[in-house]
Amino acid sequence: MAESRIYTAALIVIGDEILSGRTHDKNIAQIAAWLQVQGIRLKEVRVVADETPAIVEAVNALRTRNDYLFATGGIGPTHDDITVDAIAEALGVAVAVHPEARTILEGYYETRGGLTEARLRMARVPEGADLIPNRYTGAPGIRFGNIMIMAGVPQITAGMLDALSGQLEGGAVLLSETMGCWVQESEVAELLRLTEKAHETCQIGSYPFWRDGKTGANFVIRSVDAVDLAACCRALAEGLEAMNRPAVAGGI
Amino acid sequence: MAESRIYTAALIVIGDEILSGRTHDKNIAQIAAWLQVQGIRLKEVRVVADETPAIVEAVNALRTRNDYLFATGGIGPTHDDITVDAIAEALGVAVAVHPEARTILEGYYETRGGLTEARLRMARVPEGADLIPNRYTGAPGIRFGNIMIMAGVPQITAGMLDALSGQLEGGAVLLSETMGCWVQESEVAELLRLTEKAHETCQIGSYPFWRDGKTGANFVIRSVDAVDLAACCRALAEGLEAMNRPAVAGGI
Repeated sequence: MAESRIYTAALIVIGDEILSGRTHDKNIAQIAAWLQVQGIRLKEVRVVADETPAIVEAVNALRTRNDYLFATGGIGPTHDDITVDAIAEALGVAVAVHPEARTILEGYYETRGGLTEARLRMARVPEGADLIPNRYTGAPGIRFGNIMIMAGVPQITAGMLDALSGQLEGGAVLLSETMGCWVQESEVAELLRLTEKAHETCQIGSYPFWRDGKTGANFVIRSVDAVDLAACCRALAEGLEAMNRPAVAGGI
Repeated sequence: MAESRIYTAALIVIGDEILSGRTHDKNIAQIAAWLQVQGIRLKEVRVVADETPAIVEAVNALRTRNDYLFATGGIGPTHDDITVDAIAEALGVAVAVHPEARTILEGYYETRGGLTEARLRMARVPEGADLIPNRYTGAPGIRFGNIMIMAGVPQITAGMLDALSGQLEGGAVLLSETMGCWVQESEVAELLRLTEKAHETCQIGSYPFWRDGKTGANFVIRSVDAVDLAACCRALAEGLEAMNRPAVAGGI
């Protein structure tokens, strides 16, 4: 059955600024949430330095074992922007100026000082690639087969994801429900385990928290089957109720 | 020279909640920043699912090619907490209850309903491991040789990092300075490239931003050599000044 096929993606976040702790990455969560809506599951993420060998290794490890590979960062005009060259090297293709990207950049920079050599770097793509529109700052993202190359700046990547929405083949959307409970997760570990086991399409994640001196946990129940998901949620809520620990729908 | 040795670390973030986009990871930035202070560079990060084969693969890929390997997430009491078992499998060692961890948990849960079977799971370690204190919630982190296994909840990991401060051998601390400028980075790409080239111990990262309709960039200059770092910053500031784009020390 075509509908039972699971589509997966991997993401490579390229940037010394993430590895130094200077910048808090926002692209992992943003791309993960977007992929869910497309019916694609993010299976793994690697954060690598602005170094060609590190990028090449990650691209070659991930591009064949997932349906899609996303990369963010390193596609700007400066010397530390090496993503396009590194990915082309991994793919064994040349780098070429994409004529349409050049036209876009010429238009964007017409009133902004013109298309300099540095800016033209942003029109370079692995030869044979298509463009992903960037409605914010001209310089497009890049699609080469199942590889999507996007900006490091989260707002720009958000626009590129909008442009890609509905364009990638996906499978059944993974549905999820969250419920919270003022309980120590260790008290309900057995309930969680048994409830998950009784609903074979479902997975239950348990995420504890501490607030205002009180202990609680949110439980995230996931399934591609809406009926089984609802049954699992009902069973878990009843189990918590039976322990005098009422569940809070939607989480705490 | 011992001081020229560079120490590196890798980090494995374990958790479906990060890959689904539900939770925004905070451990990458927190551990990265802490490592910098210890004189250790975070070289790569992998985010993997709560699945044994994914964890085993990542551990075995990363544990030998870096001085240290950190892992966060999946060390709680519930069925989805499989990190200890998976790492033990990767190392080829058994899992055992650590007597001191058991004592800690007995004390912590004495007034909280007692040490149940689920809670005792949090005393399990790869056999031969040491403990990393957790002053918040009892359940300790785990150190096995060069591998540090920590909590997924960022506040708990913060406490574990405090406990480890100064305990790991590191090298020269990578120093960094940031300066901001209201300029399009494409205007200064050549200046950045030449300035970096002229200061061979330095690396310059360029991070553009858009605020209130204006374009700017922050430049992060890094080096282990304080003298060269200062010279590089001075040269870059002078170069920006010469373009009538004064630098803002500390960034914008």
